[in-house]
Amino acid sequence: MSQQSFELLILGSSAATPTAKRNPTSQLLNVAERFFLIDCGEGTQMQLRRYKARFQSVNHIFISHLHGDHFLGLPGFIASMHLLGRQNELTIYGPKELEELMAIIHKFSETQLNYSIKFVHTQTASKQLLFEDEKVEVYSVPLKHRIATTGFLFKEKPLPRNIDKYKLEKYNVSFAEIHKLKKGLDAVDNDGNVIKNEQLTIEGPKPRSYAFCSDTKYFEELAKNIQEVDLLYHESTFLESKIDRAAQTFHSTASQAAQMAVLAKADKLLLGHFSARYDNLDLFLEEARPIFSNTELAREGSVFSL
Amino acid sequence: MSQQSFELLILGSSAATPTAKRNPTSQLLNVAERFFLIDCGEGTQMQLRRYKARFQSVNHIFISHLHGDHFLGLPGFIASMHLLGRQNELTIYGPKELEELMAIIHKFSETQLNYSIKFVHTQTASKQLLFEDEKVEVYSVPLKHRIATTGFLFKEKPLPRNIDKYKLEKYNVSFAEIHKLKKGLDAVDNDGNVIKNEQLTIEGPKPRSYAFCSDTKYFEELAKNIQEVDLLYHESTFLESKIDRAAQTFHSTASQAAQMAVLAKADKLLLGHFSARYDNLDLFLEEARPIFSNTELAREGSVFSL
Repeated sequence: MSQQSFELLILGSSAATPTAKRNPTSQLLNVAERFFLIDCGEGTQMQLRRYKARFQSVNHIFISHLHGDHFLGLPGFIASMHLLGRQNELTIYGPKELEELMAIIHKFSETQLNYSIKFVHTQTASKQLLFEDEKVEVYSVPLKHRIATTGFLFKEKPLPRNIDKYKLEKYNVSFAEIHKLKKGLDAVDNDGNVIKNEQLTIEGPKPRSYAFCSDTKYFEELAKNIQEVDLLYHESTFLESKIDRAAQTFHSTASQAAQMAVLAKADKLLLGHFSARYDNLDLFLEEARPIFSNTELAREGSVFSL
Repeated sequence: MSQQSFELLILGSSAATPTAKRNPTSQLLNVAERFFLIDCGEGTQMQLRRYKARFQSVNHIFISHLHGDHFLGLPGFIASMHLLGRQNELTIYGPKELEELMAIIHKFSETQLNYSIKFVHTQTASKQLLFEDEKVEVYSVPLKHRIATTGFLFKEKPLPRNIDKYKLEKYNVSFAEIHKLKKGLDAVDNDGNVIKNEQLTIEGPKPRSYAFCSDTKYFEELAKNIQEVDLLYHESTFLESKIDRAAQTFHSTASQAAQMAVLAKADKLLLGHFSARYDNLDLFLEEARPIFSNTELAREGSVFSL
């Protein structure tokens, strides 16, 4: 049995001012064939096309905050899904003002969508469960930025235990019992004895998790909400030489992002939301890796699979 | 003396749904070093960077209507100009609801711009002078679309007469008199006789004009407002085989755009706003040129100089 997918596609890596090569923030996360769009900066729909992503498979969009570079691609994406015939409900998780804004845009353009949009309002007081099904759960986590902002934590539900075929032989259990074991039930051996499920199975793969943290200043309490995350995306708008500017604008440096990865005991760190002033992004790695070695850049088109 | 500039850069050629290669509507027109941005679909600021256009030189933005593919790049462009230190006033010409929408977006993002924006509200009852200085005038022209929409007509002011150096010799007028002639005054010959300006000068170049007409259904009255325009951009969302769909959605076909160029006695026609369903845009030329031969496609990055 192949493991279920857990794959992140980076659609935009730039901070507020995009460049000719860097788009504003957006990411597409596929967990067990649920496609979650995370932030939706201007141009996201074109980026989705560029990388041949499954446009209409997105049923859940998460918006961290209402600075333009994180949501201005949303109205166009919503309109295009409509024009391309979407009928499935879309759920948008974000600040409550986003619902108001979309209503106004649709009023002025006299748009009546073919599909319904459900809005789930985020808040910044505490971690909050936003979405849950049998495979995945998604939480918002409070960030500290100039306006109300949340990050998002995506976690696989505990995965089923794997059947150990050598144990089946050892305990004289026929393959016909496998369907019981898969359901978590005990099996019966060829002599009629009950054999406990745990004796015939081994622990399933560790549930994987991804935390998206943009935009935020560095603050240690964040680490509590994302402990032992496998993949951490943490914004690094600036290099350490601009730490004052980072504090002033409620952003982080590459070193601070790396420090957060250490505190959160993350497995891997992705840096992004790079200020347009930087051409050479390798400088971000050079600054972060001495603090947290397993660090990569979240550049347009990069794919990270867990 | 070199003629003043009159140059159009196409930033986007797609209809409502952009494709990987075609961006939503936007154009940059340079008339005598006035940089007019016409419509501002999603991604316009990235397109301006791609084509190395002069970002902060834009002081006037014209928005035809409030369908997303014509204005959703505006909030991001406004924000980027702010972040890049703009201080000069910006004037935006468009439907009055646009002012309301921008105010809401700035309220939700808690943005206080470093520069002021002046809004000039367009109306669709009649042709209207929107802007005028010593070199250029800009009019709105009513279009017929599903929501209130205007086109825009950009016209050079009458250009000064050119001094005829052979006539100066013939009439025995010294070069020292040139500054008077340039001001439109009469000159004095070397014997003290007054020589009329018209005798020493020849008519200046014909003032040039550009009409932007998107989005609209085909309607003959439009031709009156753009008579003898040098360059006509007319939307052609569809080919003639979709003429019913064009009528239904208040759009035009390539043939209809060509017919409008004939009625308006235009010199050259540009087609644009192509539906995403069409891959081969040459079909638009094949349809339009038998009706109006001097037709070109308004594709991303194309430059048209008059």
